[in-house]
Amino acid sequence: MRAAVMRNQRIAVGEVAAPVPGQGQVLVKSLACGICGSDLHVLQHLPDVIAASEGEGALAQLRPDGDVVMGHEFCAEVVDHGPGASRRLPAGTRVCAMPVAFGPHGQQTIGYSHALPGGYGEYMVLTEALLLPVPDGLPDGIAALTEPMAVGWHAVQKARLGTDDVPLVVGCGPVGLAVIAGLKISGAGPIVAADFSPARRELAAQFGADVVVDPAERSAYESWLELALLPQSDDGAPLSYGAGRPRYRPTMVFECVGVPGMIEQVIKAVPRGSRAVIVGVCMQDDVIRPLRAINKEINLQFVLGYSAEEFATSLRHLADGRIPVEPMVTGHVGLAGVADAFTALASPERHCKIMVEPWA
Amino acid sequence: MRAAVMRNQRIAVGEVAAPVPGQGQVLVKSLACGICGSDLHVLQHLPDVIAASEGEGALAQLRPDGDVVMGHEFCAEVVDHGPGASRRLPAGTRVCAMPVAFGPHGQQTIGYSHALPGGYGEYMVLTEALLLPVPDGLPDGIAALTEPMAVGWHAVQKARLGTDDVPLVVGCGPVGLAVIAGLKISGAGPIVAADFSPARRELAAQFGADVVVDPAERSAYESWLELALLPQSDDGAPLSYGAGRPRYRPTMVFECVGVPGMIEQVIKAVPRGSRAVIVGVCMQDDVIRPLRAINKEINLQFVLGYSAEEFATSLRHLADGRIPVEPMVTGHVGLAGVADAFTALASPERHCKIMVEPWA
Repeated sequence: MRAAVMRNQRIAVGEVAAPVPGQGQVLVKSLACGICGSDLHVLQHLPDVIAASEGEGALAQLRPDGDVVMGHEFCAEVVDHGPGASRRLPAGTRVCAMPVAFGPHGQQTIGYSHALPGGYGEYMVLTEALLLPVPDGLPDGIAALTEPMAVGWHAVQKARLGTDDVPLVVGCGPVGLAVIAGLKISGAGPIVAADFSPARRELAAQFGADVVVDPAERSAYESWLELALLPQSDDGAPLSYGAGRPRYRPTMVFECVGVPGMIEQVIKAVPRGSRAVIVGVCMQDDVIRPLRAINKEINLQFVLGYSAEEFATSLRHLADGRIPVEPMVTGHVGLAGVADAFTALASPERHCKIMVEPWA
Repeated sequence: MRAAVMRNQRIAVGEVAAPVPGQGQVLVKSLACGICGSDLHVLQHLPDVIAASEGEGALAQLRPDGDVVMGHEFCAEVVDHGPGASRRLPAGTRVCAMPVAFGPHGQQTIGYSHALPGGYGEYMVLTEALLLPVPDGLPDGIAALTEPMAVGWHAVQKARLGTDDVPLVVGCGPVGLAVIAGLKISGAGPIVAADFSPARRELAAQFGADVVVDPAERSAYESWLELALLPQSDDGAPLSYGAGRPRYRPTMVFECVGVPGMIEQVIKAVPRGSRAVIVGVCMQDDVIRPLRAINKEINLQFVLGYSAEEFATSLRHLADGRIPVEPMVTGHVGLAGVADAFTALASPERHCKIMVEPWA
C-alpha cells in the first residue's frame, strides 16, 4: 500500500506492506487523519524522545532507522474482518477508534509502531472491540478530530472543576482549543485563554473562550485574576489568618504549551491554593522552585490521553455539533503533501490542524 | 529579657528588650519551645532564604544583620494582658498558639520577625484571640509539639485519603513523624515509612508505621508497592486499555525530606495515577522531568502550615494521648544551650527534637 513513511527522521511517500488483520482485528481504509503536534515532535526529536521514554510507552519501542507510518487521529472505513471478529460493523461502516492494539507483546499504539501503521497510509488494522461507528452526516475530517478533542475533554474531567472555578487556558493550539471546548460543554466560566498568535486567539474565541489575551500586550494571569477577584469582605476580622490578602474564586490553570519553564511560570503567577492541570507535553527536563509552590499550596495534576468512555463522549460531542471545530481544520493534503504539511504546521498563523486524506 | 539571639547567622545569648503587648495581645513567658528544622535552615542560609522568598512571607522581611529571637513551636504562660484584651485566660494560664500576630504592617510570624521574639527568649507577645489553653497534666514540652504535629495533620487533611489508600512516608524527621501520627489517627494503612537513620526508623515504628524501610538496604518504593499490589484480575480481557500492567491500591506518597531531587525521585518511582503530598520544604531550585509525571498522570499537592482548626485538633490529639511523642524529644536545653543544640540536631542518630526551656 502507499503511505507517508518516517525513517531516520524524514518523511517520504513509499510502498509498504499492507497490514493484515489478526485475531479480533479489522482492516480499514484511512479516510482522514489529523497531524498531531506529537508527530511533529517525534519527527524532529525521535532519538531524544526514545531516550526520555526510558523503556515506558509506545515511543520507547521505536528505532529511528525503522519505518513508521504515523497518524493516530483518524476516521476510517471498515474493509475486512480478521479471524474471530464479531463482524458487528460490516464493511463500508465509517469508524473512529482509540489508536490502541493488543498483540503478543502487549499494548501498542497505532501510528507509533513499526508493526501497526497509522492513518498516514492507505490501510490500518484496528481492534474491533474499540470501534465506534461514525454517525451519518458527520464528515470524515470532523470525525477524525475525536481523538484530539478527547484529550481536552479528559483534561477537564481530571480537573474536577467546581461550579465556581475560573479557568485559564495557556496556549491555544489544538490541545488548548480542545480544553476550551471541554470547559464550554461543562458550563465552566468565564474562560480566559491566552496565545501569542492572533489566529489562535481568534480560534479560542470561536471555541468559546470568554476573554482572550495576547500575552505580548498584557499578562494573561492579570486578566484572569481580575475576573476571579472576590470583593473584600468587610467582616472586620483583622485577626484572621491570611487577613489582608486578596481573595479569589477558585482558580484553575490548564497548561497547554508544553515547553520548559511553563510549569514554573504557572506556579509563579497563580494565587495561593490554585490548581493546575498540565496538559502540554514537555519532553525536556524542567526547573521548578518548590518553595514557591509550597508557599501557595499549589496542586499540579499531570494528565495524558483519555479513557474509552471519554473518547466515545468526544465523538458524541462532535456528532451533536457541540464544538465549532470547522475553523480549526486549516488544510487538507494527500500522502504526497504530508512532509510539507509537517513543515507548514510550524506556523500557527497559517495552520492549526491539517487533515491527511490518503485516498484523495 | 534574656534570649538566644540570631544575628549575622550566629546565635548568642544576650539581653534584648522585652516585648510589650499591644492591642488585643498578651504577654507570656515561654515555658518550652522546640527547635524546628526550618530554624536550622534559616540560621545557615538566611541570605539565600530571603532571596528565595521574593518578598513573600515572613522570612522575606528579615535582614541578616538584624536581631531575631527564633522559636515558633512553643508552650507559654500568660503573664499580662495588653489594651483591649478580653482577659478570658487569666495570668498563670498555660497556652499554645499559632505563631502569628497582626500589626500595622499586616500579618507577622512570631519567631521570624525583628519585632516579635519567639520562644527562645523569656517573653513573647501573642495574639489573644489565637490562644488555646493547655489542659492540666499535659507537660509543657509535649504541648509545645502542637505546632509540628499540626504540620503533619494538615498534610494528611490535604491528602484527602480514600479508605483504600496505601501511604508511603519518605523521611522520618519531625515532619515525617507528624505525618505518620496523622495517618495513624486517620486510620490509614498499612503505613510504609523510610529513613536512612536507624534512630529515626525506630521512632517511625513507635509512631505507628506498619512497615519501616532502610533505603540503603532496599527501595522503600518496592516494599510499598508490594503491599499495594492488587491480585491480577483474571477477567480474560486482553483488550482492556492498560491490560497487562500491574494494578495497585491507590498510592499516596508524603515527601518529608525537602532537598533537591526528591520530587523527581517520587515521580520516577510511583505507579501510574499516584498522588504525592510535598511536605518537605526544598528551598533551592529543583529539576523534574514533566514527561514522566505526564505519562503516569501524577498529582502533586504542595502543602504548608495548617489552619486554626487543625492546630486546635493537634493540641487535642496530644492532650488525649493519641500520639506517642515522648521518645521524639531527645534533649532539653536552657538558653545557653541553644547554639550547641542547633549543631547537635545535625545528627539524626542522636537527636530528633530538642526543647528550649528559657526559665530552666
